[in-house]
Amino acid sequence: MRAAVVYKDGELLQKVLKVLEELGVEVEVFEEPKNELEDFDFIVSIGGDGTILSLLQKLRKCPPIFGINTGRIGLLTHSEPTNFPEELKFSVERFEVETFTRLSCIYGGEEILALNEIAVMSSSPAKLTTISVSVDGIELDRLRCDGMIVATQIGSTGYAFSAGGPVVDPYLDSFIVIPIAPFRFGWKPWILRSDRILEIQAENALLIADGQIEKNISGKVTIRKSNHPAVFFRKRGRFSELARKVKRIE
Amino acid sequence: MRAAVVYKDGELLQKVLKVLEELGVEVEVFEEPKNELEDFDFIVSIGGDGTILSLLQKLRKCPPIFGINTGRIGLLTHSEPTNFPEELKFSVERFEVETFTRLSCIYGGEEILALNEIAVMSSSPAKLTTISVSVDGIELDRLRCDGMIVATQIGSTGYAFSAGGPVVDPYLDSFIVIPIAPFRFGWKPWILRSDRILEIQAENALLIADGQIEKNISGKVTIRKSNHPAVFFRKRGRFSELARKVKRIE
Amino acid sequence: MRAAVVYKDGELLQKVLKVLEELGVEVEVFEEPKNELEDFDFIVSIGGDGTILSLLQKLRKCPPIFGINTGRIGLLTHSEPTNFPEELKFSVERFEVETFTRLSCIYGGEEILALNEIAVMSSSPAKLTTISVSVDGIELDRLRCDGMIVATQIGSTGYAFSAGGPVVDPYLDSFIVIPIAPFRFGWKPWILRSDRILEIQAENALLIADGQIEKNISGKVTIRKSNHPAVFFRKRGRFSELARKVKRIE
Amino acid sequence: MRAAVVYKDGELLQKVLKVLEELGVEVEVFEEPKNELEDFDFIVSIGGDGTILSLLQKLRKCPPIFGINTGRIGLLTHSEPTNFPEELKFSVERFEVETFTRLSCIYGGEEILALNEIAVMSSSPAKLTTISVSVDGIELDRLRCDGMIVATQIGSTGYAFSAGGPVVDPYLDSFIVIPIAPFRFGWKPWILRSDRILEIQAENALLIADGQIEKNISGKVTIRKSNHPAVFFRKRGRFSELARKVKRIE
Repeated sequence: MRAAVVYKDGELLQKVLKVLEELGVEVEVFEEPKNELEDFDFIVSIGGDGTILSLLQKLRKCPPIFGINTGRIGLLTHSEPTNFPEELKFSVERFEVETFTRLSCIYGGEEILALNEIAVMSSSPAKLTTISVSVDGIELDRLRCDGMIVATQIGSTGYAFSAGGPVVDPYLDSFIVIPIAPFRFGWKPWILRSDRILEIQAENALLIADGQIEKNISGKVTIRKSNHPAVFFRKRGRFSELARKVKRIE
Repeated sequence: MRAAVVYKDGELLQKVLKVLEELGVEVEVFEEPKNELEDFDFIVSIGGDGTILSLLQKLRKCPPIFGINTGRIGLLTHSEPTNFPEELKFSVERFEVETFTRLSCIYGGEEILALNEIAVMSSSPAKLTTISVSVDGIELDRLRCDGMIVATQIGSTGYAFSAGGPVVDPYLDSFIVIPIAPFRFGWKPWILRSDRILEIQAENALLIADGQIEKNISGKVTIRKSNHPAVFFRKRGRFSELARKVKRIE
Repeated sequence: MRAAVVYKDGELLQKVLKVLEELGVEVEVFEEPKNELEDFDFIVSIGGDGTILSLLQKLRKCPPIFGINTGRIGLLTHSEPTNFPEELKFSVERFEVETFTRLSCIYGGEEILALNEIAVMSSSPAKLTTISVSVDGIELDRLRCDGMIVATQIGSTGYAFSAGGPVVDPYLDSFIVIPIAPFRFGWKPWILRSDRILEIQAENALLIADGQIEKNISGKVTIRKSNHPAVFFRKRGRFSELARKVKRIE
Repeated sequence: MRAAVVYKDGELLQKVLKVLEELGVEVEVFEEPKNELEDFDFIVSIGGDGTILSLLQKLRKCPPIFGINTGRIGLLTHSEPTNFPEELKFSVERFEVETFTRLSCIYGGEEILALNEIAVMSSSPAKLTTISVSVDGIELDRLRCDGMIVATQIGSTGYAFSAGGPVVDPYLDSFIVIPIAPFRFGWKPWILRSDRILEIQAENALLIADGQIEKNISGKVTIRKSNHPAVFFRKRGRFSELARKVKRIE
């Protein structure tokens, strides 16, 4: 088996390589995520959730990812620097994986993928922009706001969390639609089935995928469930970890 | 075919009977919901969403329901007094139905069903009570509050709406867990898969199902997906109607 | 000087009496708050914020209160059991006081006082009631909800906090108007000048003052700033304590 | 008397000039706000609330402003195009004014004024920035967010409204402190006395006053009550208008 190790934080690198060597895995090391990561049997990420998100942006076809958390909360990672050897061995030996829906966002004929969320933002901070959201051709809402988020359930602890959204079961495949700072007396987040096709319309806006600014847009953006899910090694106790960690989000 | 007509508002009764007669349906009229409604081929409800909720409380096995709205918003009903004849004919002739998960709530060996929500409330208004919620044996939260709601996606426009919850796609089978007036600096609603088993623990509390006080409780209440869903005639444009009506909720 | 000591928690009583004796204060001990507390030069409360609130309900004319916290957060109290002797001596020797607006609530010709809040609640849990709020004769809002709260700035960390209200500067004399679980797409809390006169209208409702159910009401309740403020010994660092403790409210 | 007429929308200009001529007022017309507006006896603004906000940015000393609303809601304006002649005559003849606190924001030795709010925003959209807020030297909060708003009570219907803040009585002199999209499990808006001195600390942020980007900042911004309030002709029924219009904000 061939594994890629992507690290943001280099301190653990040698220890990780040693564990993988013991597992008989052939390893290549990457300082930065690259498309060729697609060709490995699995990926070990040393960093935080942000490292995994940026890594996923390089991958359409996604080998299983194992994350060692050197960041803050670590909802996408599988282990802490203190306990990663057992967890990594367990994961690689069992090789049980789980997949999570990614968003496929089409604008100008190009596809952008996101695990957490796609945000369409006013291109000028603190300037309201009018954004319309449609679901399967039905206008759900149209409001003046700083931006609009379409998130997956995994992204419910990302930007949608800040915008005031609920926490969604990691195993409930779904979309969250929520505005950022809407200038209106009443509004509500929406939780939708993941087979819905969403369209967001805005002028002079920024398209942001998992926190990375992708491009300036004007007009219509289509968002739907991607055929290229994110793949992770199965994480034991993912739900109970979430229940515990969500209160510590800051 | 045999139909039961349950009416809260009697004004339309004769018109409804006439339409059903034209459809060749044998009819029995009920001023109040009764268990024997289970034995009919379908039910016509003349009233508001509350009429349908109270009707469902009498039914385990649920014949398809058709609602004529004489109440406020009418998210569970199929037609207004002005357009019911066409809609009713269409529904009965096609006989396409859709089912929605109900909550099965077990306390003291007894089962209570609810379409919208189960609420566990402090038995004394404005007195905080401590409520704990567990999901598949994992404690999700424990807080002092006026009460705790477990709702279905259909109930997202019920009491959970008032408590600050999101609007959930009527076709996304799911549970909403949300406290009422929690006395804590931070809290979030949760959206869960409907195959989760929930336990709510509280002392000296009231158990309320779809707005009806059921009993005084102390200890543990178990809530899960019932084997007895609510059955409705298919409602064309249910989602677009929801998108439109949700802003008018008051 | 004559002091009354009211205790909910008796463990500290002897220590408190000893400190007061050393200060040359004549003391009378009360297991329960009584109206005659009005006639003392100051009051020492051993208990939590709730003890002080129930004590205040017996007082129109209010001698300065010193609180020793044996409860949870202790936003109204002046000291903890560990440090009360210095704080109590300091307070009694300096005798600097500060006053906080109480709400005067008139219903049926009778006056009820509250330091934190007056709540008008649906008399049946989980049953919506329609409540209207007017300010100086202008209808601010009318909505279906579980209840309506009028709080002082001190009460911003009480029931209004649970209902979703902001934290208000303890030295900004003001009223908070906020509904509990409003069944409406849009709503907002209001922060008002404390010289406004409020009227709340509801049918078959409960009137609750600082967490105590006072009476069943139907019709109009008038709420305004009372001529009988609550009086406390000056609390050094009240604002910084609030900034620190508010995050720990639960 | 000398009046300046500032117009964003020119359609009404001739009518306004005619009314002012009848009142015997000498008039000068401005297509854009300029500092010399300070030297007039009063100002007539033809436009929306935004026109008045941009006009105020040119004024330290502020002559009384009369607003004719050609924008959306019109909370700062005094009349609509249909009824302005009576209102304008009434205002000029009576010459009763009211003043509203403006924020004085000091950064790098320079002062910026704002009527609605000062916002410190992440300079990169959708990138969290860490912002700390202190009040009279006490740290109120420190969190990762899109931005932080300090608003006046008049600004409670501005950006603070979108961020989730309450509506504040226009005659309750106060500051609102509220984060935009805070990435934390718990947070609350704060309402403060207007004699508090606030400091906001952030790195690589934007300073925005009443919706206009002022400058890039790093470090500490001080915000306090300005000595140069905004001055308006008295608006009859300001509070009742607010109660009515707030529900229409969008």
